[in-house]
Amino acid sequence: MFEEIEIKRISLKEGTISLKDKVAREVPFTVKLNNAQIATLLASPSKLKELAVGYLYVEGFISSLSDIRSIIVDGKTFTAVFETKNKISADELQKKRVITSGCGRNISFYNFEDFKNCPSVKSDFRVEAECVLSLMKEFQTRSEIFKETGGVHSAALCDGDKIIDFAEDIGRHNAVDKIIGGMVLRGDSAGDKFLLLSGRISSEMLLKTVRIGIPIIISRSAPTDMAVRLAKQLKVSLAGFARGSRMNIYSEERRISCQK
Amino acid sequence: MFEEIEIKRISLKEGTISLKDKVAREVPFTVKLNNAQIATLLASPSKLKELAVGYLYVEGFISSLSDIRSIIVDGKTFTAVFETKNKISADELQKKRVITSGCGRNISFYNFEDFKNCPSVKSDFRVEAECVLSLMKEFQTRSEIFKETGGVHSAALCDGDKIIDFAEDIGRHNAVDKIIGGMVLRGDSAGDKFLLLSGRISSEMLLKTVRIGIPIIISRSAPTDMAVRLAKQLKVSLAGFARGSRMNIYSEERRISCQK
Repeated sequence: MFEEIEIKRISLKEGTISLKDKVAREVPFTVKLNNAQIATLLASPSKLKELAVGYLYVEGFISSLSDIRSIIVDGKTFTAVFETKNKISADELQKKRVITSGCGRNISFYNFEDFKNCPSVKSDFRVEAECVLSLMKEFQTRSEIFKETGGVHSAALCDGDKIIDFAEDIGRHNAVDKIIGGMVLRGDSAGDKFLLLSGRISSEMLLKTVRIGIPIIISRSAPTDMAVRLAKQLKVSLAGFARGSRMNIYSEERRISCQK
Repeated sequence: MFEEIEIKRISLKEGTISLKDKVAREVPFTVKLNNAQIATLLASPSKLKELAVGYLYVEGFISSLSDIRSIIVDGKTFTAVFETKNKISADELQKKRVITSGCGRNISFYNFEDFKNCPSVKSDFRVEAECVLSLMKEFQTRSEIFKETGGVHSAALCDGDKIIDFAEDIGRHNAVDKIIGGMVLRGDSAGDKFLLLSGRISSEMLLKTVRIGIPIIISRSAPTDMAVRLAKQLKVSLAGFARGSRMNIYSEERRISCQK
């Protein structure tokens, strides 16, 4: 996940010194579907299978693991090759997506009217604020690559009382795709889980989690106004600035309870 | 650039209170070129003309302002409509890009071999570390939206002794595209300027600045290893963690001098 390189450090007080420092790795990861190259993701080289499956899922190319006949991930050439059971071409999938998917990362759907047909998240799952903040603290501690290099985003999947999956990436989107890919590969339920994020919550980030049906998203950082409006419309509980003993709730506060 | 909304704040010590808080706005900004819709950028609603021109430039659709016959930017519908002097279609431009552009945000070019034909940055421009760190401090102070909402990235263009342009956006890429678009619109020279960034330097960020020819990039955050390798290959001076009285130099340190 990181590489040690020679750098110069300039200090106005001490002058220039040479030293070794760690930087986060970034690799071009190519995803091929039924012989068509559909994307090259610039990513951290970890959980590449999860990243590819998560990407195909959030982009609407697959709707479950059972759509896939075979997956070959090559960690040396950074390539993932998928065959789906139905031999539809990537071109056809692309067209299908534009017509049918209301909840993917699709540029056609940024008119809020277009989300009318997108099912809202129905879960009655509830968590205690104290539990969320305690897991957020653990989440921070686990973000080791960030501590090493200052260059990556983290995401974690939690059930009612623990972190069950954790992913890091130089890209905010990739970190979440890795978590979602893991859920698809394991066949996890989504309605009784929540997501912890280190980075900002934009509309695209929100729509990814709606697509799989996670009802609660908690970030250490800020949401955008569009993410808040979509969260309200699609009944997602959205919290930001979760740090120390506090957090801000932007929507559906019913799912986050506080005993005080 | 931001909107005030009603939120709940949960504090383990004080319980739940309702209050008003500011969140960064995020709008879908559609760019049309010769009657074809080429992109919808999710962006902060400021400097939209600069954003659209910068986007067309870094993506290789135009190579200077003189390629453009007309620009209409509508700040209400968040749409930019461009006509180029040569009536080539967006499809043709797309193909042209894949074949000729070695320095755009193009997925074909992530084999380092492919950068062989990409001209390196030739400038002999030099800056004092003290000047860079002093401007970085001013840059931080100007990042007001970030202070209000914790949700945006900033970029600034500097000459030898001052900030000459400044842009903020919820997207790292958009903030840089706004700076580059401003340079294209004003016809600025690039070889005697440097760029300040709040966010991480990935390979894509580096290639944008190489495309316009800025020789020095300074960030408060970390670079990735691919950005460092490209910076060495393309002769860009890359510095990160520029904070207080220190910074790390990853490549071409000859352009950043320290009197100590």
